[in-house]
Amino acid sequence: MRATLMYRAGDVRVENVPDSRIENPTDALVRITASCICGSDLHPYHSMTADEGPARMGHELIGVVEEVGTEVATLKRGDLVVSPFAISDNACEYCRENLQTSCSHHEAGFWDGLQNEGGQAEAVRVPLADGTLVKLPVAPDSALIPSLLTLADVLGTGYHAAKAAGVLPGQDVTVIGDGAVGLMAVLSAKRLGAERIVLMGRHTDRTDLGREFGATDVVAERGEEGIARVRELTGGQGTYAVLEAVGHMPAYEQAVGVVRPGGVISRVGVPQYEEAPIGFASLFRHNIRLAGGPAPVRAYIEELLPDILDGTIEPGKVFDTTTDLDGVPAGYRDMDERKSLKVLIKP
Amino acid sequence: MRATLMYRAGDVRVENVPDSRIENPTDALVRITASCICGSDLHPYHSMTADEGPARMGHELIGVVEEVGTEVATLKRGDLVVSPFAISDNACEYCRENLQTSCSHHEAGFWDGLQNEGGQAEAVRVPLADGTLVKLPVAPDSALIPSLLTLADVLGTGYHAAKAAGVLPGQDVTVIGDGAVGLMAVLSAKRLGAERIVLMGRHTDRTDLGREFGATDVVAERGEEGIARVRELTGGQGTYAVLEAVGHMPAYEQAVGVVRPGGVISRVGVPQYEEAPIGFASLFRHNIRLAGGPAPVRAYIEELLPDILDGTIEPGKVFDTTTDLDGVPAGYRDMDERKSLKVLIKP
Repeated sequence: MRATLMYRAGDVRVENVPDSRIENPTDALVRITASCICGSDLHPYHSMTADEGPARMGHELIGVVEEVGTEVATLKRGDLVVSPFAISDNACEYCRENLQTSCSHHEAGFWDGLQNEGGQAEAVRVPLADGTLVKLPVAPDSALIPSLLTLADVLGTGYHAAKAAGVLPGQDVTVIGDGAVGLMAVLSAKRLGAERIVLMGRHTDRTDLGREFGATDVVAERGEEGIARVRELTGGQGTYAVLEAVGHMPAYEQAVGVVRPGGVISRVGVPQYEEAPIGFASLFRHNIRLAGGPAPVRAYIEELLPDILDGTIEPGKVFDTTTDLDGVPAGYRDMDERKSLKVLIKP
Repeated sequence: MRATLMYRAGDVRVENVPDSRIENPTDALVRITASCICGSDLHPYHSMTADEGPARMGHELIGVVEEVGTEVATLKRGDLVVSPFAISDNACEYCRENLQTSCSHHEAGFWDGLQNEGGQAEAVRVPLADGTLVKLPVAPDSALIPSLLTLADVLGTGYHAAKAAGVLPGQDVTVIGDGAVGLMAVLSAKRLGAERIVLMGRHTDRTDLGREFGATDVVAERGEEGIARVRELTGGQGTYAVLEAVGHMPAYEQAVGVVRPGGVISRVGVPQYEEAPIGFASLFRHNIRLAGGPAPVRAYIEELLPDILDGTIEPGKVFDTTTDLDGVPAGYRDMDERKSLKVLIKP
């Protein structure tokens, strides 16, 4: 079968690999019908060394169950399913607390950590299939597929940013980053009733979509200038919640700059730093809280699915390009060059 | 009048200073009857340069109102009052949200930031007296004074650690630090219904008091060894809430080491660092949250006062030494050398 491998920064190839197949009785084999490239895939695309590659890529997927292991109880051949970016048994202590990204099962983890599987491919072996996969009540060629595919990561990740920040009706929110996750954070803050949603981003096509999703203000300036602009918009205070959907240090610094005393910075962009300012001058003085992490998107699927099925939300609008597997390397390049917002793959 | 000044690290003197007096119509002049030395006073005692001194010291006080400004409405001469370590109008937007430490009034701030006033003295001018001071329904020589004095800082600060962590009945909590604030955090976690309270500290007299306040386990080991011990006690998981009552980097690292996935580190020890690990490996991977800051102790006084008055809690037990103003320099030394846990001053 064919699959996407990253050999090192900037070097993405689609190659023949051994067919995925059932290995454990709790596995499912899924024929992938829709997948995509994630903003977080751009991090290794910038930084991966040759020693770290080649790595199988892709952690967002919809597909048709082709075969199930002997212990899989809830799925059968022919089911259309979506897989979150994290594998979990959905049964352990952490999963029951809706923290599936910290599932304690020994097979749990991230797709990105698996050696021989990935979503940007023709098929995939899904470990802990009963826990990981969620059945979708539509056909594989449904017009809703792009929106449903966002349940695998970006929608749930943006929603997690807003939930972890504790966004409540009437609150003011700043979203940092106009990538797909940032736009989903806007949509999520809106869904939770935020009144003013300031989107910090400088790509007009994206921020326009952000306005469609609920942003009330767009700030294109960055750094000190951007901070001053948000403060100006909010009576000098900053906003109670700041959803940081980038992961780079300047985005964190911007978050510290625009958060209101007593407020919260909720991070869902994978941090590309380890150390950062959290002392008296940055967080402590005004009781600023820090929240977030890898989103337990599995926890949010049941809640968000009905809104997609009935058309209340259309998160699939973040896909502005569709390609087949052959087009994946160009898809990375286009996303990196901001020519594409998010690339849908039909393998 | 006489007052305490710190000239530089290790150099504390009691000297004659100009009498405090009413300056603004919202001031009160308070004759101090009980004050104390704070663990946080030891930070400048270690690090203050000669350029930064001399500074008036002391931010915890009980006293008798001697005079009030023309606009003071709720206090009169003869009232016994306690002052939190932060001055606030208790009326602004932040105060109404119970974040009095971020009060937006231009006279608000910390006692420690005032040039010519301090609690380790015979008297003090209290700005924004109506907002800052709380009347106490006892006599100045009541046996409850030591416990009531903890309302000025350490009790409210320990309570803030537990509240900011969202401690709920039945939860497991680790408290880092066996100073007065750490012990108050133990008492507070107990008051909020925590089931297991692991106290990390290595001074047996203090941890014994910690056990009396509610600690179920004491871990004397520090660093990696201490982390391993807490994990051993908690089935390898760590605890959901970690209350960090020290402020030095090793305490923060210990907190990261013992917090459970999805848990929270609540800091009330004033950070003696600005940068610290918060990236994927430390906080992000398992959605660890960071909370805390200078405690809005004003917000907690009404809630905690009845428990002191009826003897439910006896936080005053943290005072193991009493002195007059002359004994203050020795009090700093004794606290620094861990000969005293907390020194009560009767000026």
